[in-house]
Amino acid sequence: MALEGRFDEAAGVVRVGDDARQRYHDSRGYGYPLEGNEIALAPVEAAHLLYRGDLEAVVDDSGERLDFRAFVAREPGRKFGVRFLVYADLRSRGFYLSPASEPWVADPPEEPADFAVFPRGKGPGDGEIEYALRVIGERTDVPAGELTAGVLAVVDEESEITYFEVSRRDPSGTTGATLPDGCEADLLADRVVVWEPPVDLYESAFYGQPLEGREYDKPTLQCSLLEAAYLAERGAIALEPTAVRERGREVEGERFDRRLAVYTTLRERGVVPKTGYKFGADFRTYADVESVENLGHSELLIRVHPDDYVFEPRDLALDVRLAHGVRKTMAFALVDEAGGVDWWSLERLTP
Amino acid sequence: MALEGRFDEAAGVVRVGDDARQRYHDSRGYGYPLEGNEIALAPVEAAHLLYRGDLEAVVDDSGERLDFRAFVAREPGRKFGVRFLVYADLRSRGFYLSPASEPWVADPPEEPADFAVFPRGKGPGDGEIEYALRVIGERTDVPAGELTAGVLAVVDEESEITYFEVSRRDPSGTTGATLPDGCEADLLADRVVVWEPPVDLYESAFYGQPLEGREYDKPTLQCSLLEAAYLAERGAIALEPTAVRERGREVEGERFDRRLAVYTTLRERGVVPKTGYKFGADFRTYADVESVENLGHSELLIRVHPDDYVFEPRDLALDVRLAHGVRKTMAFALVDEAGGVDWWSLERLTP
Repeated sequence: MALEGRFDEAAGVVRVGDDARQRYHDSRGYGYPLEGNEIALAPVEAAHLLYRGDLEAVVDDSGERLDFRAFVAREPGRKFGVRFLVYADLRSRGFYLSPASEPWVADPPEEPADFAVFPRGKGPGDGEIEYALRVIGERTDVPAGELTAGVLAVVDEESEITYFEVSRRDPSGTTGATLPDGCEADLLADRVVVWEPPVDLYESAFYGQPLEGREYDKPTLQCSLLEAAYLAERGAIALEPTAVRERGREVEGERFDRRLAVYTTLRERGVVPKTGYKFGADFRTYADVESVENLGHSELLIRVHPDDYVFEPRDLALDVRLAHGVRKTMAFALVDEAGGVDWWSLERLTP
Repeated sequence: MALEGRFDEAAGVVRVGDDARQRYHDSRGYGYPLEGNEIALAPVEAAHLLYRGDLEAVVDDSGERLDFRAFVAREPGRKFGVRFLVYADLRSRGFYLSPASEPWVADPPEEPADFAVFPRGKGPGDGEIEYALRVIGERTDVPAGELTAGVLAVVDEESEITYFEVSRRDPSGTTGATLPDGCEADLLADRVVVWEPPVDLYESAFYGQPLEGREYDKPTLQCSLLEAAYLAERGAIALEPTAVRERGREVEGERFDRRLAVYTTLRERGVVPKTGYKFGADFRTYADVESVENLGHSELLIRVHPDDYVFEPRDLALDVRLAHGVRKTMAFALVDEAGGVDWWSLERLTP
């Protein structure tokens, strides 16, 4: 027999009595207990019970009886539509989940989240949270400063949901190589040519890209302005670092200094950054380069952004989708005014 | 025996005599004939011959002898570095190619291009052009109004080259379906719910997305604001078209009207547009939908832009790479002030 709920609009919950506590809370993880034998349901929980036919109606403050359609049309609560869709999706995948706040959960996640999702087979009372889940529509901007570790559920305009795991992730590697000293080089409009460098500069340390097919036996290396700035600063090539950096700024504006900060940090961490152009990213990175001959695949794609950047979910979907398609992980390097870098990675998640 | 050239800096060509005409022009497609037995070489052609050791040096106006390195350091001519790299790459792939202007080619391509590339096995004199090729560095912006049919070669910062075939491409399809009349629907914050529509609205015409798992036998369809605006305008759902469009603009700003113009055009052409969110695009499209049960894969990913949009090559690389990875073609819909649409497609090309 389906029960009826009472919409306490001031408190923003739906109260249900009778045997709701045993049927919906104790055995199925909905809501939280009130005095007596009532339970309080969040609007998305009440909507889900209406949706499934477990609640017949919800009566509002004026006495109007609302069925699923009418309750949904009220859009009770912030982001109701997208939160309901995610709630329903995770329920259908066999998870228990609750609003990520007291009194639904005794120990809510530290980071702001919409839902606490429990490990499969466990419920709200077991005290273990699998995912701290945040829900957004695809048109919701995400300022970089508001990124939090956890799961991000993005609901697109046709109500499909994509889940992302957002984690802090500092890249590190084992690549190290001695740099040469004062190699001859020329600064061109948008690149640098290094003439007859020691063969290890490319073969072991993976700087630049050889110019192929010269009939003379004179290895020539082309470097990006970024690589060249790094090498010039360390005296490995005989160019004025200032001149190379100036050229870099001419070509790419303020992006250049940000990318150089990230490039430098990566090299210092033993990671080899190469251009990510073909993947639409700033860098692709190799953690453990011993020789170019035995090069594995790059593991990360990195996008460099200022720390006040605002992400659009659609671009996140694109970046992560591409990375996944080429078996790499998408990472973001957020650079502050002083050149400090904050690292995040985003991966597609199937809950 | 390697020859020497003379750099005529005013004319911007390198002149070579002796048997250059027979050795470099007649048999290998470099340069164009001058009076007597001299030929004139474009700077990239001269650089290539220096590179290969066929020219020993180029003497400039002041009498200085320039080897490959010194000639390159001069950066003779606009976009010299990137044009040289593409020239060398295509030569190494077995193509003959020339600057795309007279007198190198008798009949240059109509569209502005850097090089005329000839079909494999054919040369400048055979009168057949395989590709009208334009060369840019990865940091060069491409205004939408400057897109031309042909091949675009993008040289990244580490001198790798990606080739794109740019074509005009009007989508068309065979999907047609009768629309229902006045279905009940509710306008929510960022989507629309259609209550108990005829089953064909989704099953044959592929509008919306069903809400799954309802225990009642009441099919419920969620539509995007875009689909809903289109349906409302045609009386298929009982919502005020103006209200839906207003909501669309609240959610996505001016993009909404552009996307609606493209959505409408596609439906009119018998193509079914669905959201492209998961691919970071505006739409994925199906040309021939008979029923959702027998749905094939979508063929195109479409990005919608205003006609004054400026493309960044890095984003083009990303879009095209993703499309290729999911076996679709990337297309761009450029929308003018009046809602007219110009269609382009971009595909990766291996010359």
